[in-house]
Amino acid sequence: MPHLIVEYSANLPAFPEAQALAELNAAVVASPEVAHEADLKSRIVRTGSFQVGTQPAQRAFVHAQLRLLAGRTPEAKQDLAERVAGVLRRLTLRPEGVLVQLSVEIVDMDRPSYIKEQL
Amino acid sequence: MPHLIVEYSANLPAFPEAQALAELNAAVVASPEVAHEADLKSRIVRTGSFQVGTQPAQRAFVHAQLRLLAGRTPEAKQDLAERVAGVLRRLTLRPEGVLVQLSVEIVDMDRPSYIKEQL
Amino acid sequence: MPHLIVEYSANLPAFPEAQALAELNAAVVASPEVAHEADLKSRIVRTGSFQVGTQPAQRAFVHAQLRLLAGRTPEAKQDLAERVAGVLRRLTLRPEGVLVQLSVEIVDMDRPSYIKEQL
Repeated sequence: MPHLIVEYSANLPAFPEAQALAELNAAVVASPEVAHEADLKSRIVRTGSFQVGTQPAQRAFVHAQLRLLAGRTPEAKQDLAERVAGVLRRLTLRPEGVLVQLSVEIVDMDRPSYIKEQL
Repeated sequence: MPHLIVEYSANLPAFPEAQALAELNAAVVASPEVAHEADLKSRIVRTGSFQVGTQPAQRAFVHAQLRLLAGRTPEAKQDLAERVAGVLRRLTLRPEGVLVQLSVEIVDMDRPSYIKEQL
Repeated sequence: MPHLIVEYSANLPAFPEAQALAELNAAVVASPEVAHEADLKSRIVRTGSFQVGTQPAQRAFVHAQLRLLAGRTPEAKQDLAERVAGVLRRLTLRPEGVLVQLSVEIVDMDRPSYIKEQL
């Protein structure tokens, strides 16, 4: 059931999307919180229209949002966030002179109204 | 006030975006939870950079997120999710050999800080 | 730490993305809720596949989502939403005959599991 959405700013052109998808999914489904590997649906979006703060400095960002059904413990959520951050930290190449912010957010999804099925 | 965001993976090239928007909006605004039909703002995004799980199998997904001001009953939220799922279930054509996961999520939006106006 | 995501419908082709990013960031980081201006990561997405309601009228929308770590007072959230709305209200040009809906949503992010670091 988890959904993983990674956004990154277009001034990180070397970000390896396919490799990141493969490694992120491997890291997240290895968590005991994910029942079946096929449950994880991940996507990566490059954003061309962005601004970090108000200074003209060279700044970039990579942000991941992992959405799971509500009910996980704080520890489980921290572990999942660290799994995602670990991969992104390793795979994000910092261009010369660019400051890159990395962030990971865990979102609880409303469980009673969630619908999931295979077509 | 509701916002509907549908994402689908690019290996579902026959997904009928315009028809889905029309039928989703008709189904959702027919709910007693939506005061005015014009309140519903829907969009569909095709995602080209995605991965479902860790296996090389042919896998696709369609995911909808319906964001409403907080305060609906669990029953109302389940009904809204089913309205969305019903349309997507009917309109998503499954390519030969591809497994398609369909999911629908209802999100509560913070009511006191929400701003809405017509320009 | 805040993330600002602005979406607008493609029938607002004159929407000034770069100017909006600059003015939105200036308005938001001037809030006492934002510790460092560089913390704010903003992006703008134009959505080409959309529908507002069920009528064939000419309708457009601009929607902003500001995601902050949980714990702000209701007053602080209202102030932040108004900062965003003020800029968008001013910069959104309404094409002749088009009704434009403007909305701003504040989202609480789960604080204990949030990860943020600079690479």
